Amino acid sequence: MSEVLQDAIKRIAMPDQDAMERTRRRLDRLTKPPGSLGRLEELAVWLAGITGQTGGALSQRTVILMASDHGVAQEGVSAYPQRVTSQMVLNFLRGGAAINVLARQARAKVVVVDMGVMAELAEIEGLLVRKLGWGTRNMAREPAMTRKEAEQAILTGIEIAEQEIERGAQLLATGDMGIGNTTAASAITAALTGLPASEVTGRGTGLDDDGWRRKVALIESALALHQPDPSDPIDVLAKVGGYEIGGLAGVILGGASRRVPIVLDGFIAGAAALLAVRLCPEARHFILASHRSAEPGHAHVLNAIGLQPLLDLDMRLGEGTGACLAMHLIDAALAIVNEMATFEEAGVDDRT
Amino acid sequence: MSEVLQDAIKRIAMPDQDAMERTRRRLDRLTKPPGSLGRLEELAVWLAGITGQTGGALSQRTVILMASDHGVAQEGVSAYPQRVTSQMVLNFLRGGAAINVLARQARAKVVVVDMGVMAELAEIEGLLVRKLGWGTRNMAREPAMTRKEAEQAILTGIEIAEQEIERGAQLLATGDMGIGNTTAASAITAALTGLPASEVTGRGTGLDDDGWRRKVALIESALALHQPDPSDPIDVLAKVGGYEIGGLAGVILGGASRRVPIVLDGFIAGAAALLAVRLCPEARHFILASHRSAEPGHAHVLNAIGLQPLLDLDMRLGEGTGACLAMHLIDAALAIVNEMATFEEAGVDDRT
Repeated sequence: MSEVLQDAIKRIAMPDQDAMERTRRRLDRLTKPPGSLGRLEELAVWLAGITGQTGGALSQRTVILMASDHGVAQEGVSAYPQRVTSQMVLNFLRGGAAINVLARQARAKVVVVDMGVMAELAEIEGLLVRKLGWGTRNMAREPAMTRKEAEQAILTGIEIAEQEIERGAQLLATGDMGIGNTTAASAITAALTGLPASEVTGRGTGLDDDGWRRKVALIESALALHQPDPSDPIDVLAKVGGYEIGGLAGVILGGASRRVPIVLDGFIAGAAALLAVRLCPEARHFILASHRSAEPGHAHVLNAIGLQPLLDLDMRLGEGTGACLAMHLIDAALAIVNEMATFEEAGVDDRT
Repeated sequence: MSEVLQDAIKRIAMPDQDAMERTRRRLDRLTKPPGSLGRLEELAVWLAGITGQTGGALSQRTVILMASDHGVAQEGVSAYPQRVTSQMVLNFLRGGAAINVLARQARAKVVVVDMGVMAELAEIEGLLVRKLGWGTRNMAREPAMTRKEAEQAILTGIEIAEQEIERGAQLLATGDMGIGNTTAASAITAALTGLPASEVTGRGTGLDDDGWRRKVALIESALALHQPDPSDPIDVLAKVGGYEIGGLAGVILGGASRRVPIVLDGFIAGAAALLAVRLCPEARHFILASHRSAEPGHAHVLNAIGLQPLLDLDMRLGEGTGACLAMHLIDAALAIVNEMATFEEAGVDDRT
């Protein structure tokens, strides 16, 4: 493992228990029955453990949206043609995609990164180009990437997270785009959890029954062919992963090492988070599961990490869309701590 | 039944199927797999059925927060003293309560209505005083109110909803405050659904085991004493309800009759909605369940109406807090319809 990666992992520390306890005490003095705001209160306590503050605001937020192509798309595992990855990158940069709409509503910046799109995008204004290849290789035939590329994907994510934090980001969210990437996420999930491919594989952008069966069979045979080592997350990423998934694992490690909360989007982000947590279990304390995706593998991934999603809205788009919705709940949790009156201030009698 | 009430009920019509179909078609042309935004897409279609528009904005939103006292509070069914109702009304008017914080965040106005608080509040700036009594009577001994008062509570809600709509409200949300009101809501739920009191009764603001058993026994004996007629919602409201619950049932009917969407908060709002829907089944199409409360009766109420809550955050505060959180999702749904690019506009290939 490279030194940069080892260093980032070493810097990941535990939550600030004092700040969490101070926040709990404040919440109990506010004019409401203790705990009656449920998960909003838990959110406020969780954030305090990361920021070391009771309340405050996380007004600078950045969605790091990583795009890449997948060699496995050649096998017909998606309802959309592969060129949609690059077409959607252009859509992100022009502001017309769902993530642009929901990020604007949540006052979040979107940083789009080409981690390995199968198109020349170097000249495009506003795009961060960190191409590790022209798509991964087809896992049905050969490992998706080399071990070196897998490490480089993670390092790129760490670098971009740090860069955004230097620029003021107080909250990071993960976004993803890549035709074929639910196949990679399902393969990673099966490899790391030991669950059968059929349980962790869904219909992605909308496969029919036949397409779904082919996708499951393909994942099973790729796992049998490459035998990824479940105790070695980088091996798993290299053999059946994707550049953007490795990148997002890096974003999570980079954010956690700098004590910045990371809001996960859906299944792809979940697979990245599982890789990150297998590399560094403490990273778990810095991530929030924004929602439970309609992709069946997602619930298994969240279970394996020990995360409870905030929202369950039957969404399965990716891009960071669910993460942006959760930002409103984060704002709500912080506003409660910042703005509510205590029993004393309001002259309201506490419980008898 | 009074003429005003009959008129409001008669005006409640069906959703606009054409607008819903137009919205579905637009959603399917946007740059995302069909249906991949899950419940956000359903929300957009639901709103179109009410407003007759595809997209648009509902920027004027009003939380109608109805407060009242409950005679049954004398029986010790709450962890808080009864005077907390009036103290919290003052807190609402000064802006220090959870609802104020979350309504500000959701850019909603809060209208506080005294439906029957056991304190003289006539001189208080900003409060709508529509007192039907100084608290209801104690249902453990006598009917909570007369049939006339029950009708008057509903009419008051209709009147206030219409007044807010005249002033520009495009979206209404329900809020409630009343020490003892989960006892009334549980009794209404048991009476209207036929479920045993023990299944629809929770711990309210935080009862212990003994307190919970007393609360269940009290509801059982009140239902046995008054024998409310489940086919007559006004009889149920009169015998075991509350002024603010009747008022909120009126807000729902008033909003529905003017084709304004109504966002329900938690269990109290749910009991009010069940009363409204039993008076006029079509009203169901105009209401959204913002969240599932931690109060066990709430899931039963939503089931009985046929509503799926959007959020499940273990909240149990009331006041309209959950409804305000759902407004961000409503905004998100409308923004998706308004702002996303279509496949043609973005030059993205549709499914193969």
